[in-house]
Amino acid sequence: MQSVIKVNLPQTKYDIAIAPNILDRLGDRIKDLKLGKKVLLVSNPEIFNYYGETALKSLENAGFDVCAHLIPPGEIHKNLDSIQKIYDTALDNHLERSSTLVALGGGVVGDMTGFAAATWLRGVNFVQVPTSLLAMVDASVGGKTGVNHPRGKNLIGAFYQPRLVLIDPNVLQTLPPREFRAGMAEVIKYGIIWDADLFTELEKADRLDDLSSISQELLENILISSCQAKADVVSQDEKEGGLRAILNYGHTIGHAIESLTNYELLVHGEAVAIGMVAAGEIAQNLGMWSASETQRQDRLIQKAGLPTEIPANLKASDIIATLKTDKKVKAGKVRFILPEKIGKVIITDRVESEAIAAAISKVRSEEVAAI
Amino acid sequence: MQSVIKVNLPQTKYDIAIAPNILDRLGDRIKDLKLGKKVLLVSNPEIFNYYGETALKSLENAGFDVCAHLIPPGEIHKNLDSIQKIYDTALDNHLERSSTLVALGGGVVGDMTGFAAATWLRGVNFVQVPTSLLAMVDASVGGKTGVNHPRGKNLIGAFYQPRLVLIDPNVLQTLPPREFRAGMAEVIKYGIIWDADLFTELEKADRLDDLSSISQELLENILISSCQAKADVVSQDEKEGGLRAILNYGHTIGHAIESLTNYELLVHGEAVAIGMVAAGEIAQNLGMWSASETQRQDRLIQKAGLPTEIPANLKASDIIATLKTDKKVKAGKVRFILPEKIGKVIITDRVESEAIAAAISKVRSEEVAAI
Repeated sequence: MQSVIKVNLPQTKYDIAIAPNILDRLGDRIKDLKLGKKVLLVSNPEIFNYYGETALKSLENAGFDVCAHLIPPGEIHKNLDSIQKIYDTALDNHLERSSTLVALGGGVVGDMTGFAAATWLRGVNFVQVPTSLLAMVDASVGGKTGVNHPRGKNLIGAFYQPRLVLIDPNVLQTLPPREFRAGMAEVIKYGIIWDADLFTELEKADRLDDLSSISQELLENILISSCQAKADVVSQDEKEGGLRAILNYGHTIGHAIESLTNYELLVHGEAVAIGMVAAGEIAQNLGMWSASETQRQDRLIQKAGLPTEIPANLKASDIIATLKTDKKVKAGKVRFILPEKIGKVIITDRVESEAIAAAISKVRSEEVAAI
Repeated sequence: MQSVIKVNLPQTKYDIAIAPNILDRLGDRIKDLKLGKKVLLVSNPEIFNYYGETALKSLENAGFDVCAHLIPPGEIHKNLDSIQKIYDTALDNHLERSSTLVALGGGVVGDMTGFAAATWLRGVNFVQVPTSLLAMVDASVGGKTGVNHPRGKNLIGAFYQPRLVLIDPNVLQTLPPREFRAGMAEVIKYGIIWDADLFTELEKADRLDDLSSISQELLENILISSCQAKADVVSQDEKEGGLRAILNYGHTIGHAIESLTNYELLVHGEAVAIGMVAAGEIAQNLGMWSASETQRQDRLIQKAGLPTEIPANLKASDIIATLKTDKKVKAGKVRFILPEKIGKVIITDRVESEAIAAAISKVRSEEVAAI
C-alpha cells in the first residue's frame, strides 16, 4: 500500500509518498523526477548508521552518482558553520544546479539540508526523507528551512520547497519514545486546527504514548491525515501571509517556554503540548470554546504521554516578555491561534496581557521543576 | 522627469524608478509600498560617506525607524561572515518580517544585502538603490543575490526579488571612471542580445568612455533601455531555466579570464567585454554572424574604452578547463551565448573545444600582460 498526498503550490508541486519500506525505493522515486545524476545525501551519524546503507544502495541501484555528508547530532550544530561544511562537500563533489540534496533524518537534518539546497548555486533540488514523527508530520512538509542564530532559533532561513517527501513509517521503530510522543503533539494539533475526524480517531485509540501499541493502520492514518492537513494549509498560504499561521497553534506560548528553559527541559513537542493547553485555557476564558472541548483536548494530550503544565518556576511576566520577541510579532503585537471548536481555530492579535497571565497561572504546575 | 519600468514576475511585481535626485525621495517611495516601520540601510563606508546622509534623512522624514550597517569595501568581504554581521545588526534593531533592508551601493552591497534579506526571518523586504552603472543596469534587477565561497564566486545565494529599485543617475558622478566603463560593457551587451536600437544609439554617440562627455538624455536612455531589457528577460524566465541565460553573453569566457587572473587584473565588465569579443569571433567562425557585425561590436567596445584582447599569458587550454567548472555547466557541457545578429543571440552547448581554442588564439593579445 502506498498513499500519495499532492502538494500544489503556485510555482511548484510535489508528492508526499507514504508507505512502509518506501526507503528501498528512494532511488527510483527520485529517478522518476528526471533530475541530474548527482545526489548528496545529508544525515547524522546515528540515523545514517540505521538507514544510510539502504538509502545509498537504493540511490546507486537507480544509477545515481552518490556522496554523503554527516552533520553532528543536535540542535547545537544547527548553524551556519554546519551549512558551510555541506557547501564544501557539495563543491568537492562538483554538484550542479540539476543535482539533488537528500535529507535523511529528523527536523534538524531536514531544516539544514533544505537551507543548503536553497542557497547552494542559488538553489539545487531537495528531497526530504524524514525519520522522526515530528519531521514526518510537520517539518518535512511546507518548505520552511533554516538554521539558528547564536541568539535565536530559526532566525536564518528560506522558504524552499522539496521536490519530493518520502515517508517510511517503519523507520519510526528506532525513534526514541520521548521523540515519538513529542511528534504526537503536532498530530493532535492537526486534529484541533483542521481535522476533527483525526481528533476523534485519536480519541478512540487505547494508547497514543507508545509506538508498539499503535496499530499499523492507525499509524498510517495519522501520517496521512497530518500531512494532508499541512499540505492543505500550505497550499493555501505558502509563505505565512495568513492562514498558515494556524499551524502555530500551541507554538506561541510553547516557544516562549522552550526559550525560557534554554531548550533543555522540554523537547519541542512537549512545549507545544503545554502551549495548546494554555491556548485552550485562554479561548475558554474568552468564551470562545467550551469547557468540555478544553477537557477533550487536554485528555488527549495526556493520553499521548505529554506534559500539560507550565514549569512552576517560570513567571507569567517573563513568558509574556518573551512572547513579544517572537519573529512573528507584527508591530509589537503578539499573535495567538485560539480554538473555536475541535477542527477550527482563529488567528488573533487581540489577546490582552491580563488574559495571557490568567491562563498561565491556571496552567502552571505547583511544583518547582528541576532545570 | 521620472521613468518607471515595471517588472512582472509570477509571484511578485516591482518598479524600477529612474530619475535624477530620486534618492531624495527614497523614504516616500518605500512608504508608498506600505511596509513595516523599520528600515536597515546597508552600504559601504565610501558610498555612505557620499550618500548616506541623504538616504537616511529621506527615510527619517518619511517616518521610518532607521538604522545603518556598513560592510567593509571589496569583493574579499563578500562572504558569509559579513552576512552574519548584517544578521547581528538586524537582531540588535529588532527587525521584523515586515521590515526592509535597503542596499545603497554597488553590486557587492546589493548582492549581500539581498542575500541577507532573503534569509533573515526567512525573508524580509528588500529595496535596491544601486550606485554603480553595473549595479544599475545589471546586478540590481533580476533577483540574483549571494556571496562567494572561499573557492568560488557567487556559489552561495538565492533568487530573491526586491520590492523596488531606485536609480538616481546623479550618483554616478562619484563613480571611478574605470567602473563607469566596466558598466558600459553590460550596456553594450543589452544592445547585442536584445535591443538593436540601443546598440545604434550607442554607435551614434561621440564618446562612451567618460561620463562627463555623455549627455544627460543619453545616460537616461541607456539606463532605461538596459533595465527594460533585463526586466523583459527576467520576466520571461525568473530562475534561469532558459531564456535568462542570454544575459550571460560574454560571461562564459569572461568569467574564466577573471578566475584565471585571480580577479585582480580586470574588473568584471572588462572581462565581459573581452568575452563578448571572443563570443563574436566564435559566432563569426561558425558562420552565424557577419564580419561586419563582429567589427561593429568590437568598435563599440573599444569606444567605451574597454579591452578587447585576452591577456597573452593565458593559455587556451587553461581557459577551456576553467569553463568546465562554471556553475552553469550542465552534465559537463559548456553553454555559450552566441550572436546571430545585433539584437539577437542563441544559447548553445554545441561549441567544440577546437572552435573555442581557435577564437581564443585570435583574440589573445601578443603582449604579455603584467599581473
